[in-house]
Amino acid sequence: MDFAPDALTEEITARARAFVDQHVLPAELILKEQLAATPQEWSTRPIVRDLQQKARAEGLWNLFLPGDPAATGAAGLTNLQYAPVAEVTGWSPQLSPAAFNCAAPDTGNMEVLSQFGTDAQKQQWLAPLLRAEIRSSFCMTEPDVASSDATNIDTRIRRDGDSYVISGRKWWSTGAMNPDAAIFIVMGKTDPDADRHRQQSMILVPRDTPGVRIVRPLSVFGYDDRDHGGHAEVAFDDVRVPAGNIIGEEGGGFAIAQARLGPGRIHHCMRALGMGERALSLMTRRANERHAFGRSLAEQGVVREWAAESRIQLEALRLLVLKTAWLMDTVGNRKAMTEIQSIKIAVPVAVQTIIDRAIQVHGGAGVSSDTPLAELYAGIRSLRIADGPDEVHLASLGRNELRR
Amino acid sequence: MDFAPDALTEEITARARAFVDQHVLPAELILKEQLAATPQEWSTRPIVRDLQQKARAEGLWNLFLPGDPAATGAAGLTNLQYAPVAEVTGWSPQLSPAAFNCAAPDTGNMEVLSQFGTDAQKQQWLAPLLRAEIRSSFCMTEPDVASSDATNIDTRIRRDGDSYVISGRKWWSTGAMNPDAAIFIVMGKTDPDADRHRQQSMILVPRDTPGVRIVRPLSVFGYDDRDHGGHAEVAFDDVRVPAGNIIGEEGGGFAIAQARLGPGRIHHCMRALGMGERALSLMTRRANERHAFGRSLAEQGVVREWAAESRIQLEALRLLVLKTAWLMDTVGNRKAMTEIQSIKIAVPVAVQTIIDRAIQVHGGAGVSSDTPLAELYAGIRSLRIADGPDEVHLASLGRNELRR
Amino acid sequence: MDFAPDALTEEITARARAFVDQHVLPAELILKEQLAATPQEWSTRPIVRDLQQKARAEGLWNLFLPGDPAATGAAGLTNLQYAPVAEVTGWSPQLSPAAFNCAAPDTGNMEVLSQFGTDAQKQQWLAPLLRAEIRSSFCMTEPDVASSDATNIDTRIRRDGDSYVISGRKWWSTGAMNPDAAIFIVMGKTDPDADRHRQQSMILVPRDTPGVRIVRPLSVFGYDDRDHGGHAEVAFDDVRVPAGNIIGEEGGGFAIAQARLGPGRIHHCMRALGMGERALSLMTRRANERHAFGRSLAEQGVVREWAAESRIQLEALRLLVLKTAWLMDTVGNRKAMTEIQSIKIAVPVAVQTIIDRAIQVHGGAGVSSDTPLAELYAGIRSLRIADGPDEVHLASLGRNELRR
Amino acid sequence: MDFAPDALTEEITARARAFVDQHVLPAELILKEQLAATPQEWSTRPIVRDLQQKARAEGLWNLFLPGDPAATGAAGLTNLQYAPVAEVTGWSPQLSPAAFNCAAPDTGNMEVLSQFGTDAQKQQWLAPLLRAEIRSSFCMTEPDVASSDATNIDTRIRRDGDSYVISGRKWWSTGAMNPDAAIFIVMGKTDPDADRHRQQSMILVPRDTPGVRIVRPLSVFGYDDRDHGGHAEVAFDDVRVPAGNIIGEEGGGFAIAQARLGPGRIHHCMRALGMGERALSLMTRRANERHAFGRSLAEQGVVREWAAESRIQLEALRLLVLKTAWLMDTVGNRKAMTEIQSIKIAVPVAVQTIIDRAIQVHGGAGVSSDTPLAELYAGIRSLRIADGPDEVHLASLGRNELRR
Repeated sequence: MDFAPDALTEEITARARAFVDQHVLPAELILKEQLAATPQEWSTRPIVRDLQQKARAEGLWNLFLPGDPAATGAAGLTNLQYAPVAEVTGWSPQLSPAAFNCAAPDTGNMEVLSQFGTDAQKQQWLAPLLRAEIRSSFCMTEPDVASSDATNIDTRIRRDGDSYVISGRKWWSTGAMNPDAAIFIVMGKTDPDADRHRQQSMILVPRDTPGVRIVRPLSVFGYDDRDHGGHAEVAFDDVRVPAGNIIGEEGGGFAIAQARLGPGRIHHCMRALGMGERALSLMTRRANERHAFGRSLAEQGVVREWAAESRIQLEALRLLVLKTAWLMDTVGNRKAMTEIQSIKIAVPVAVQTIIDRAIQVHGGAGVSSDTPLAELYAGIRSLRIADGPDEVHLASLGRNELRR
Repeated sequence: MDFAPDALTEEITARARAFVDQHVLPAELILKEQLAATPQEWSTRPIVRDLQQKARAEGLWNLFLPGDPAATGAAGLTNLQYAPVAEVTGWSPQLSPAAFNCAAPDTGNMEVLSQFGTDAQKQQWLAPLLRAEIRSSFCMTEPDVASSDATNIDTRIRRDGDSYVISGRKWWSTGAMNPDAAIFIVMGKTDPDADRHRQQSMILVPRDTPGVRIVRPLSVFGYDDRDHGGHAEVAFDDVRVPAGNIIGEEGGGFAIAQARLGPGRIHHCMRALGMGERALSLMTRRANERHAFGRSLAEQGVVREWAAESRIQLEALRLLVLKTAWLMDTVGNRKAMTEIQSIKIAVPVAVQTIIDRAIQVHGGAGVSSDTPLAELYAGIRSLRIADGPDEVHLASLGRNELRR
Repeated sequence: MDFAPDALTEEITARARAFVDQHVLPAELILKEQLAATPQEWSTRPIVRDLQQKARAEGLWNLFLPGDPAATGAAGLTNLQYAPVAEVTGWSPQLSPAAFNCAAPDTGNMEVLSQFGTDAQKQQWLAPLLRAEIRSSFCMTEPDVASSDATNIDTRIRRDGDSYVISGRKWWSTGAMNPDAAIFIVMGKTDPDADRHRQQSMILVPRDTPGVRIVRPLSVFGYDDRDHGGHAEVAFDDVRVPAGNIIGEEGGGFAIAQARLGPGRIHHCMRALGMGERALSLMTRRANERHAFGRSLAEQGVVREWAAESRIQLEALRLLVLKTAWLMDTVGNRKAMTEIQSIKIAVPVAVQTIIDRAIQVHGGAGVSSDTPLAELYAGIRSLRIADGPDEVHLASLGRNELRR
Repeated sequence: MDFAPDALTEEITARARAFVDQHVLPAELILKEQLAATPQEWSTRPIVRDLQQKARAEGLWNLFLPGDPAATGAAGLTNLQYAPVAEVTGWSPQLSPAAFNCAAPDTGNMEVLSQFGTDAQKQQWLAPLLRAEIRSSFCMTEPDVASSDATNIDTRIRRDGDSYVISGRKWWSTGAMNPDAAIFIVMGKTDPDADRHRQQSMILVPRDTPGVRIVRPLSVFGYDDRDHGGHAEVAFDDVRVPAGNIIGEEGGGFAIAQARLGPGRIHHCMRALGMGERALSLMTRRANERHAFGRSLAEQGVVREWAAESRIQLEALRLLVLKTAWLMDTVGNRKAMTEIQSIKIAVPVAVQTIIDRAIQVHGGAGVSSDTPLAELYAGIRSLRIADGPDEVHLASLGRNELRR
């Protein structure tokens, strides 16, 4: 239970921080301009490519991926080692994770392929993803059902000779608007009559397969997130893929989803801490610079209380994230489930409050695009819904507690 | 202190509700399509014109304007009579207020002209505004200062012979992106050395005056609000207007602003109640329709508590809004200042929570544009900043309470 | 829906306020001394008797009791008329209600007798209660079951010839430690097999009936409330009373309980507003008098925000209480159920927060007996449990809202 | 930053837990009976003596005291090692700390003597305190001033020849009602004209010195805490003590107070976590046992959410407490000031909420003395005031954060 960063962690984190400060934060304005210049495009923008090239050259690349460096080509950081690096990327969540090839949903998809993929699947899809030559999407949530209950999933994956035929409709397929998103991992039911958690399978569906149809983009508050491929509604109309595209085995979809969600959730929380730190930092600066009624905002009203409470929350929750990472490293993701659920519940809602207060201190600038705050808010607010709404996790965690 | 709606109020409210149900709510989708079809336009969309024509024909027009119907051409409702009508328009705040010619900032501008304008000013600007032939903007907030402290205002209005020359920079000039916004009411300092509240004046600046420059649009949580003219940053570079364009008298700007803000704030609160009712209604429907883990959302978890608390809050705050309206009608806006401040603080934050919960119950649909919730959220969140942030009002109200 | 106090209300409220200011508040210290002098006594203290005599002489007596003055001997105030009077008594909830003979549980018991009692029952028990010659207790809650669910009630009332025989155990029988509490109204089951809400009956049990046993006093936080007879656990061991002691009819207990609870709950809320006002008033005074770090507490930190939020809450909730009273007067308690539930939920929790903040501003004095705050806190905290915990009411109200 | 308990910690904690489970929790009822039997006594009750004897025999004694075991006779645990032990004692805060001779204010007083006392002072006062032969009190807070601002302190300590003469009035002198409290450490001003933090000194005043007058006991939410000597108001009327009674040096009082407060605050927080765990444990049991409307409380309403949120809060805050302890051990109390302030703010308020919810789940039993909850509540509520109210710490912490 030693959370102190080791030498490797300190070294990589320091470099990551320097990279974010020197290259990423200044690039936010450039991204904004590139987005404004190509309002109809969903593809990766040049500035992201530039940053990726720089980051890769510096070895700040695929850091999210645990496991043997020889096998993955990544640094092979533990969760505990990766945590402060991921937090640093959270300062600029639009750019940093993409720059480091550590952005969702590619990270989760790479983990799935790395852990459950066949050699052929790895060769074809994992390798180019690790080089950021392609991007990917994860198609689980469905528009017509409460998808936090996996038994609700309606998409069907039917075996037909040497193929599987997929039919169904997904949404919130992040990144899928980006034409570079060459491969989709689709969750569906191969056997609706099987046991509750053996009905589902995951399968690889190349974007250009006939029957795959990008229906429309979705927005989050007023943001379409087009810089990283947006969020799509995708229809699968009798989409036929080779039987070898199944990931793992038939009926293994739920287990793979669970395996994928653990790291996904903690990565979100690590980055969320960075988002909170950035918001607090912006709030602090603004409160000192802005004057009203003869004094700076920092000297009056509730700003001091907000700063103090924000600091305490970030410190306490960071420790909980680190403990969770340490548990995942030492006893495995499965046994760290309670802690993963705890941070999934606690971190986003706390950071939401911190960002909201930073917005309030900024006044009109806070809700506009002159600060990153409103967009950070939209992102963190969505996290309380993505991968299962808070209430589902609270009920599950509470049930366990009441059974103790 | 009788808050029961009188016969006139009941009749108008019933007609307004029917109009909103039959014409406005179905028009939301049409507006969305018209906006999608003309993504670069800031002007009033055809569906709004249609609704305006219908509403005017039904006498649902300019209802916000108190005073002698003979003089104003409006119905002459009291604040208490207008309250439930305005609440009904809050169910669809993008469309209803515009449809009824009861939308900010035109309403406040019409009130200012009606109350402080010369006959010539009324003839030239109030008359076409009352007919919705033109629109207007109100230029008070400045980007570089905390504008809730009026002494911070930096824009200068200098007398020069028969003219005034205006120089300064404003932002959050709502509606100003719309080319139909023909007239701007600008707040600036005519005498920085006068008493604290006699330094400011208000002046009429036609949009096409040389030196008026629309710098850029601002967004609110990613929304540009282009359907009603957005929010602009506007530069005034030595803009020269006739001396007769001053409103009221030199040094009267602060008093006019105060007079304008009272009704503006209560109108926002009335509509906010309608926004809260709509969110609660959507939440209720969703909770009943959506099933997870074998039961509807309405039958599990905290949704029941949320529904109950939302209902109680709306009931209590509606009464406070009605009392405030009644006070404004009976003792005047000035003596109702405490109550106006109270609802300005209490209503938006409560409705924000209600909308946030409705979003949560909708999951991904809640943050997307498939429901009006995320956009309602952006709107209500901004209200906690517009016309003075909550904290300024809390401090002022608290100071009074502590002096009792 | 006219909440303005009429002339009668204004007159009585003014007199009540003067009485509380002149006689009751100064008597708090005397009560404390008399309690300290007789630490083992549970009876009504001399100062209460003095105040009762004065109040009765001034006509500030039995004001809670609605209905025909000729029949009740009371003033016959409506709920709306009584509300501000009851609020005034809330400033000193230990003394004022007792002084005015408007204290629970006597009030509820008098209402029950007045509404459902036979002439003989009225003659024997109502008459002396109206003159405060005796006191009474209400025995509903049981220690072993969740009594908010009336079907859980375990006490049996069995018909045996001309008698009923009661056996069971009650607690939180307020006032029952006082030897003057001559009569107990006991709720029990006459027919456990009847319909859910026809199983229960209410019956009159004189204190001195064989088998009635006062088991022990209960405390609320560290307070035993001995000044108004405390709260007792009471055993009924085969207690035999004449059949004529039944109130109303067999099986009518649930309906009587419901009828009793409506007024009881609103009276609690009315007084709670007064408790909140007193706490706010104490907080204000303390914040102005106390200095730290060179300024008064009123000039720093969050006290201003607390004062403002407290004021707003009290204003909004007072209106909701008044509306509820008005509804009870005009459409009846039954149809005002939703509103009664709303204030039962909303008022105590809000006043709890106000008192808690007042405590915080007072520091150590706030938790001690040097201010009335800690005892006010204990009282208001209990209200969130008494007559059904918040959560039961929230669930019920939420269920209704979700069915709309 | 390794928070995992080492072997020694695990061993002692396990023994402490077993002791609490086997001896202390069952003794709570005995204490209650002994208190009831001697309602006028303030002295240590026999059951406490029994437990002390047992605990001492088992080496669960003076565990709070860091430093060289040879010098102190204690185990010499670090803060990190002591944390889980102290948490275990928090399950029964009335009895366990006293049983282990780890109860405030003796602990702080022993630390002061151990760290700043002369050999003679140690011999006379520390030695018997370490053996629990006497008890002590700490006299800092004053009734007439906001004592969180040390410059407000009004008590004077004047040098007069070989003596010091103390005059002033203190309150919240915990334990001082107990006749066994043989020694008082008194804070006062030796030089009101010195620098802000050099005006104060601390001095040893034996209880039986002429001029020491116990004015009265204070209560906390109705509890007089007589089992551990209550809280007294104490007058010092020209109390003369030898000059050698000064602790450390003249003008050193503020520094000693700071040194004393650090450990005191973290000990409170450690125990508070145990109080929270006990409340959560009681809530869980009750929620499973109690049924209403056909299901256990655990299966309905918000109890699940409460249990989950409580668990998360306790986990996160425990980590923050451990980090603080680790910092105190490694970089010293002074450099851990920010973290000490953070837990002082965050832990009590979180535990207060947890206890409040446990009360609510228990209904009437929760506010009575049938569960320890109401008394736990009173204790934790006071912690938000003791050693400086939350708001002072929030303002200080916020100021630092805004300066970063």
